[in-house]
Amino acid sequence: MSALEQTRLKLIDRYWNAANYLTVGQIYLQANPLLREPLRPEHIKPRLLGHWGTSPGLSFIYVHLNRLIQDNNVNMIYLAGPGHGGPAVLANVYLEGTYSEIYPEVTQNEEGLQRLFRQFSTPGGVPSHVSVPTPGSIHEGGELGYVLVHAFGAAFDNPNLLVAAVVGDGEAETGPLEGSWKSIKYLDPQRDGAVLPILHLNGYKISSPTALGRASDESIKQLLAGHGYEVYFVEGQAPMEMHQRFAETLDTCYAKIRAIQDEARTRGMKQMPRWPVIILRSPKGWTGPKEVDGVPIEGTFRAHQVPVSEVKTNPEHLHILEQWMRSYKPEELFDEHGQLLSELAALAPKGEKRMGANPHANGGKLLVDLNLPRFNEYAVKVKRPATERYENTRQLGKFMRDIFKQNDAQKNFRYFCPDETNSNRLGDVFDVENRTFEEKIIQIDDHLANDGRVMEVLSEHLCQGWLEGYLLTGRHGLFATYEAFAMITSSMLIQHSKWLEEGVKLAWRKPVASLNILLTSTCWRNDHNGFSHQGPGLIDTALSRRGTVARIYLPPDANCLLSVADHCFRSRDYVNLIVIDKQPHLQYLSMEEAIEHCTRGLSIWQWAGNADKVEPDVVLACAGDVMTLETIAAAWWLRHHIPELKVRVINIVDLMTLYPPDVHPHGIDNALFVSHFTENKPVVFAFHGYQRAIHQLIHGRPNAERFHVRGFNEMGTTTTPFDMVVLNEVSRYHLAILAMQRAERVRELTPPLIQECNDMLARHHSYVRANLEDMPEVRDWTWTD
Amino acid sequence: MSALEQTRLKLIDRYWNAANYLTVGQIYLQANPLLREPLRPEHIKPRLLGHWGTSPGLSFIYVHLNRLIQDNNVNMIYLAGPGHGGPAVLANVYLEGTYSEIYPEVTQNEEGLQRLFRQFSTPGGVPSHVSVPTPGSIHEGGELGYVLVHAFGAAFDNPNLLVAAVVGDGEAETGPLEGSWKSIKYLDPQRDGAVLPILHLNGYKISSPTALGRASDESIKQLLAGHGYEVYFVEGQAPMEMHQRFAETLDTCYAKIRAIQDEARTRGMKQMPRWPVIILRSPKGWTGPKEVDGVPIEGTFRAHQVPVSEVKTNPEHLHILEQWMRSYKPEELFDEHGQLLSELAALAPKGEKRMGANPHANGGKLLVDLNLPRFNEYAVKVKRPATERYENTRQLGKFMRDIFKQNDAQKNFRYFCPDETNSNRLGDVFDVENRTFEEKIIQIDDHLANDGRVMEVLSEHLCQGWLEGYLLTGRHGLFATYEAFAMITSSMLIQHSKWLEEGVKLAWRKPVASLNILLTSTCWRNDHNGFSHQGPGLIDTALSRRGTVARIYLPPDANCLLSVADHCFRSRDYVNLIVIDKQPHLQYLSMEEAIEHCTRGLSIWQWAGNADKVEPDVVLACAGDVMTLETIAAAWWLRHHIPELKVRVINIVDLMTLYPPDVHPHGIDNALFVSHFTENKPVVFAFHGYQRAIHQLIHGRPNAERFHVRGFNEMGTTTTPFDMVVLNEVSRYHLAILAMQRAERVRELTPPLIQECNDMLARHHSYVRANLEDMPEVRDWTWTD
Repeated sequence: MSALEQTRLKLIDRYWNAANYLTVGQIYLQANPLLREPLRPEHIKPRLLGHWGTSPGLSFIYVHLNRLIQDNNVNMIYLAGPGHGGPAVLANVYLEGTYSEIYPEVTQNEEGLQRLFRQFSTPGGVPSHVSVPTPGSIHEGGELGYVLVHAFGAAFDNPNLLVAAVVGDGEAETGPLEGSWKSIKYLDPQRDGAVLPILHLNGYKISSPTALGRASDESIKQLLAGHGYEVYFVEGQAPMEMHQRFAETLDTCYAKIRAIQDEARTRGMKQMPRWPVIILRSPKGWTGPKEVDGVPIEGTFRAHQVPVSEVKTNPEHLHILEQWMRSYKPEELFDEHGQLLSELAALAPKGEKRMGANPHANGGKLLVDLNLPRFNEYAVKVKRPATERYENTRQLGKFMRDIFKQNDAQKNFRYFCPDETNSNRLGDVFDVENRTFEEKIIQIDDHLANDGRVMEVLSEHLCQGWLEGYLLTGRHGLFATYEAFAMITSSMLIQHSKWLEEGVKLAWRKPVASLNILLTSTCWRNDHNGFSHQGPGLIDTALSRRGTVARIYLPPDANCLLSVADHCFRSRDYVNLIVIDKQPHLQYLSMEEAIEHCTRGLSIWQWAGNADKVEPDVVLACAGDVMTLETIAAAWWLRHHIPELKVRVINIVDLMTLYPPDVHPHGIDNALFVSHFTENKPVVFAFHGYQRAIHQLIHGRPNAERFHVRGFNEMGTTTTPFDMVVLNEVSRYHLAILAMQRAERVRELTPPLIQECNDMLARHHSYVRANLEDMPEVRDWTWTD
Repeated sequence: MSALEQTRLKLIDRYWNAANYLTVGQIYLQANPLLREPLRPEHIKPRLLGHWGTSPGLSFIYVHLNRLIQDNNVNMIYLAGPGHGGPAVLANVYLEGTYSEIYPEVTQNEEGLQRLFRQFSTPGGVPSHVSVPTPGSIHEGGELGYVLVHAFGAAFDNPNLLVAAVVGDGEAETGPLEGSWKSIKYLDPQRDGAVLPILHLNGYKISSPTALGRASDESIKQLLAGHGYEVYFVEGQAPMEMHQRFAETLDTCYAKIRAIQDEARTRGMKQMPRWPVIILRSPKGWTGPKEVDGVPIEGTFRAHQVPVSEVKTNPEHLHILEQWMRSYKPEELFDEHGQLLSELAALAPKGEKRMGANPHANGGKLLVDLNLPRFNEYAVKVKRPATERYENTRQLGKFMRDIFKQNDAQKNFRYFCPDETNSNRLGDVFDVENRTFEEKIIQIDDHLANDGRVMEVLSEHLCQGWLEGYLLTGRHGLFATYEAFAMITSSMLIQHSKWLEEGVKLAWRKPVASLNILLTSTCWRNDHNGFSHQGPGLIDTALSRRGTVARIYLPPDANCLLSVADHCFRSRDYVNLIVIDKQPHLQYLSMEEAIEHCTRGLSIWQWAGNADKVEPDVVLACAGDVMTLETIAAAWWLRHHIPELKVRVINIVDLMTLYPPDVHPHGIDNALFVSHFTENKPVVFAFHGYQRAIHQLIHGRPNAERFHVRGFNEMGTTTTPFDMVVLNEVSRYHLAILAMQRAERVRELTPPLIQECNDMLARHHSYVRANLEDMPEVRDWTWTD
C-alpha cells in the first residue's frame, strides 16, 4: 500500500486543523472568530458548553473519509456515535459548504464564522450534539447505543452505499451497541451496501476509563474477530504519522469492502465475508491543551467536555485558550474574508458526494411510494357481525406478501420481527420472501436465505433500530413484536419520534415513511404465559408524544387491521402504533364498513345497540379486540334482559380521536364528540390498555367524569382468557353491571339482573377453581340476534 | 481430570431421565402420571403448552451442578436464562424435595405428581416459565436478556457464592445480554463471588437458527476470549458420553474458579482473571421424539415448544408420546407410591445446599438492615425559604458516603450509575469508596480500584440489572441515571415490579430492599443539551404499576431529598422513583419542616400563600423542583400585585397521595383531599412530568375538572432554563395568568395584570431572540417577602 503524497497529507492536516479550530471556536467564542485581535474575556461566551474530548477524532475521521470519497467517487454517509461531539461534525459540514447552503445566514466568511460559533449550544441556537438540524445526519447524538444498528439499517438494500459509523468507546459499553456488532450476519454483500465501523478508542468516559479503551489490542481483536470482522488498528498521536497510517488503512479497508462485494456479486457468496473494522486509538482531546493548572488534560478524562474552563476570569486560562487556538494557525486556513482557502476547500468532495449533502442522509429525497396492492382484496367475509372467528393478523400477512411482491423491483420494503413471524400469523410472507441470514444455511432451515427481507433476530433493539435506519434513508417497513416486551425499545420510540418532531419543522428535511409498530400477543391473551407477559404500556409512551407525530390504532378485527395498515404504509413522518391480537377472534365489519369505520376513527355500531332513533340511557364504548368482544356481549346481554334500557355501542379504532383537537389533529371537535358520547349520559368504556390513559385523553370533554373506564389493571397470571377480563373487572358481566348501575332511567328494574350477572361471575370462579378452561357460554359466544 | 465412576454416572443419567419424564408429564398429562396404564386421550390435557426444546438441557445442567455441590459443598444458585423451560426447573426443584416443602399439597407421591403435572400452565396453576413462585429463582423467564446481569449482581459481595447462569442462544442475541458478558470487568475475585456462565447452544429459536448456534467454535471462542473468558466446549448427544465430559468440564471450571479466588485472596490480584465459561452444544429437544409425521424433530426448531401436538386426537401421536415417556423408564425411577427412589434422591444436595432452597435465591431471608446515619445531620441550613441556592443532590452524596462507611463491615450497599457520579453531584462518596474496575489501573485514573462499590458503566441495563440481582439476594442500593434516558430500562422496571407484585403474595418469599431509582439531569434543566435530552416518561411507567409496589417522589429541595432517600433505603419490596435536578436550586424547607412535609406527602405551604385563615380563591399546586420555583414565584407575584386574591400553595412530594385510596395505599382520603384542594375552587397545578398524568391521578376526586394542569409538553430545545418553562407554558407568568383567569371573585381586577404578565413574557422572548441568557429578574429571583 503506497503512502500518500506528502503535499497532500499536509493539506489534509491543515484541513483537520481548520475543523479543530472551528470546534474550539464553537465551544468558546462569541466574537473575534479569526483571532484578528488578541483574545479578551469579552470574546468568550458567558456559558461554556460542548464536548471537546471526542471532537478531534471525529474530525480526523471525517477529513480522511473526504479523501477516500474524492479518490474513489464513493457514495458515503457518516454516522457519529459520539454525537455529543457535535461541534466537530458541524465544523466539517460547514467547511465542505453544505451548512451554508442549508442555512444561508451562516455564510462562508468572518460574519458566518461568528454566527456558527455563537449559535452553538446557545439560547435559540443549535444543540451541542449531532441532531436533526445537522446536515448529513440520520443519527442523534443523544441516547447512546444505536449508531451501528442505524448504520446497518441504512445499508440494507443500498448496494452502492458505504456507511461510515464511528463508535465511541463509551457507547461501546451499552447493551444495544454490543448487540449490534452481529448485524453483519444479516447483511448481504450482493444486495446490500456496506458498513465500515470505526471504533474510536480514546480511553475515557466523563471520568472513568472505558471497558474497551483499557482492553488490550489482542482482546479487542479477538472480540471483533469473534463477531466476524477483520480488525485493523491505528494507534498513535503524532499527527503526520497518524494521517499516513489512517489513510493507508482506509484504502485497505475500502479495497477489501469492494473485493467482498465484487466477489459476491460476480461469483455469488460462498461464506459470510469478514468485513473490515478499524480501531482508532487516539488521545482524548487530541491537539488540545496538554496541561492546565498543573494537571494533565490531553489524553485524560479531563478533556471530555470543556478542558479550560475559567477563560473569562482567569488570564492564564485565557492565555492557554489563545495559544491553543493559534496553534492551528487560522491565518493559514482562512483568507482575509474568513473563507476557507481554496486549496483546502478543494479537499472536500463536491455536490451530493459531500457527506453533509448526501441524499441518503435526508431519506425523504429518495423516498419512492410503495406500490401497494388493493388491501380490500384480502378482506375476510363477514356476513353477520360477531358470528365467525378468524386470526386477526393472518390477512395482514397476505397483504404484506403482496407488498413484497409488488415492490420487488424497487427493493424498499422490509419486515422486522424478533423470531415470531409465524407465531404472529404473518407467515404468508414466506411464500415470496425469506428470513435473511449470512451464516451457513442447512437443509432443515425454514425459508432462510442470504438475501431475505424478513429480518428475524431475537433483539428488539436490532429490529427497531435497523428499521429506523432503513426509514431515515428513504424506505418502508413494519416492526412486529410482543406487546409485553415492546417496552424494551420504548426509549427508541421516544427518540425516533423526537427526531421526526424536529424534522417536520425543517423544510429541507423531506418527509420519510412512518415508523410502523405492530403489537401482537397482547396482554388479554397471555393467560397461558402469565403475569410477566402482560403489559400494554407502550400505548402510554406513545400518548406522551406530540400530536404531530404519534398515532395509535386499536383495530377490532381483521378487516379494520387491513384498512389501518394500508393507511399506515402510506403515511409519512409518524410513529404508528397498531395493537391487535393474533389469536382467532370474532369478526365484526365487512370491508366496506371497516374502511368507513377506520376513516372516521370511531363509530356508533348501530347493530350492536338499541338506541337508533333515541338518546341512549348509557353508552358502551370500547377500544381493542378483546374489549370489543366483551362490550358487544354486554350490550347483547343488556338488550335481551332489559330491552327498556337504551344502549349505544361505540367502537374506537383511532385512539387519538378522543383527544381534544388542540392536542391532536385527529381529535374530533366537541360537537362530534357529543353526537357520539352524548352530552351527559354515562359512558362505560372498556379499554385495551391501562384504564387511566382514557382519562388523560378525554380531559376537557363535556362532563368527563361520567366516563367509567375499565382496562388492564395489572391483574391476572396463568389462567383462562375470560378470567383475564374478569380479574381486571372488564368482563361483559362487569360492564353490564356498571351500565345498569349508572343508567338512571331503569334503576328499579336492575337489582335482580345485577344479581344474575354476579351469579354468572360466581359460576365462572368455580370453573377456574376447578382448573377448567372457560365455561362454554363464554368460549362459544357469538352474535345470535 | 479423572473420569467419574460409571455407577455414579448411570445414577446421574437416571436422575436426568426422571427430570425429563416430569417435564414431559407437565406439558402433556392430567392423569396417569406414572403410566401405570396405557396412555389414553383422556389422560392428556385439553390445551398443550410449554417449551420442551430447551428443557432437557436445563435439567442436564441442573443435575450435574447437584453433583458438583455434593462433591465440593458448594454454595450455589441457578439462574435459567431460557426460563421458558420452566417445567425443567420445576421438575428439578420437585425432585430435590424443595417444591413439596414450600407447596405441601404437591406431595412426593403419585397424587403429588399428578398435581405437579396438572397445575403447569393451567388455569389457576403456575406459569409455564420460571417465575416468582418457582423456588430457587431470582430470575423470571419472560423478557430475555438479563440472566447474566442478574447473576453478577447476585455474586457481588457474596465471596462464597457461585452463581450458575444458563444463557440460551436465543437470549444471547439480545443487546442487554451481549452487553453483560463484560461484567467480569467489574467482578472482584477477592471480595465477590463467582459466576459460571453456561452458554447453552441448541441452535434454534422458534423457527430460525440462532446467531451463535450457527457460529463456529472458533468464532465463539474468540468472542468470549475477547471478553476475557477461558472457554470450554462440551458438544454431543450421546448421553453417557456427555455426562462424562460435562462432569469433567464442571470439575475443571470449578477448580479454576477456586484457584482464581485463592490466588487473589491470598496473594492479591495481579491482573484481571480469565474466568471460565462453558459452551454446551446439545440437540434442541434432546431425548425427545426423533421424527413426527415424517418430519425431523429432535435437534431442529420444531422441538421448540410442544413437539407432538395432536396426541388427543391422533392415535399415532399418542403412541409417539407414550413411547417417548416410557423411554425414560418411570418404573425404574419412582417407587410404587410414586416417590423418587432413594438411590436417586440421594443425588440431590441436602437442606439449604439444594439450589431450590438456597437462601440467596430468597434474599429477604438474608437481608440485614442498613446501618443508616441520621440523615438530618446532612441538612442544609434554610433560614428563610427560597433565598439560597444549593445543588439539590450534593447532600445526598454525603449521606451515601456515610452509608458506605457505616456498612463497610456488612458490605451490603452499592451505588450504580452510568458514569455520572460526579456530574450528579454525588461525588462525596469518593471520600470513602472507589469506582470498581478489574482491568489495569493507571496513575491518572480517578478513584478507581478493583474493590470499589461505586459501579459506573455506560450501560443502564447493566446498572439496573446488577442492582436487581444485588437486591434479590438480600442487599441494598441505588441506581442514579439521566432522566431522559431512564426509559432505556423502563421494561426492566416493569418486570422487576411485576416480580415484587407477585412476590408479596407468597409468604415464603421474604421482603427484599426496594429498587431505588434516582433521576437527575431532568428535562427542565436540559436546555443546553436540547430536545433529545428531555423526557420525564418514566413517571408514567411507574404510575402504571400496582399500588402495592410503586412509589414516586418529587422532593422540591435538598432537605426533602434526604428525608425521602432515608425512607426509601428503609423500605421493602417497592420500586421507588425519586426525581430531582442536580443543579443549584432555591431551598425551601428546614430539615424539621422537610421531615414533616415528606411524612405527609403533600402540604399547604402557608408562608407562600395568603389564605391562612380563609378559603382560597385559587390553589396553586406543584410537584417537582423547577415547578415549585415557578409556583412560589407565581404566588409571590400574585400576592404583590393583587393582594385581594387569596392564594394557597400546595407542594406534593409523594405523587401517590393524589390517587384515591382504593388505587394506592398512599392515596389520601377525600376529606383530606378537600381540606387541601378545597371542594370546588380552581386548582392550577404545575407538574414536573407530562401534565396529563395528573388527570389520571385525580380522576374521581371532587370536581376534578377544576384542575388546570401544566407540565412538560415536549416543547423546547437548546435554550435557557426559563425559556423551557415558558415554551411549556408553565412559567410563573403563565401560572399567574391561569390563576387570575380562573379566580372568579377578583375577575374585574385582573385584565391589566394579565397584560403585565404577557408583557413580561414578551420581554423574555426578546432576550431569547437575542441569544441571551435568562433575563435578570428570572435568574436572580429569590423570596423577598
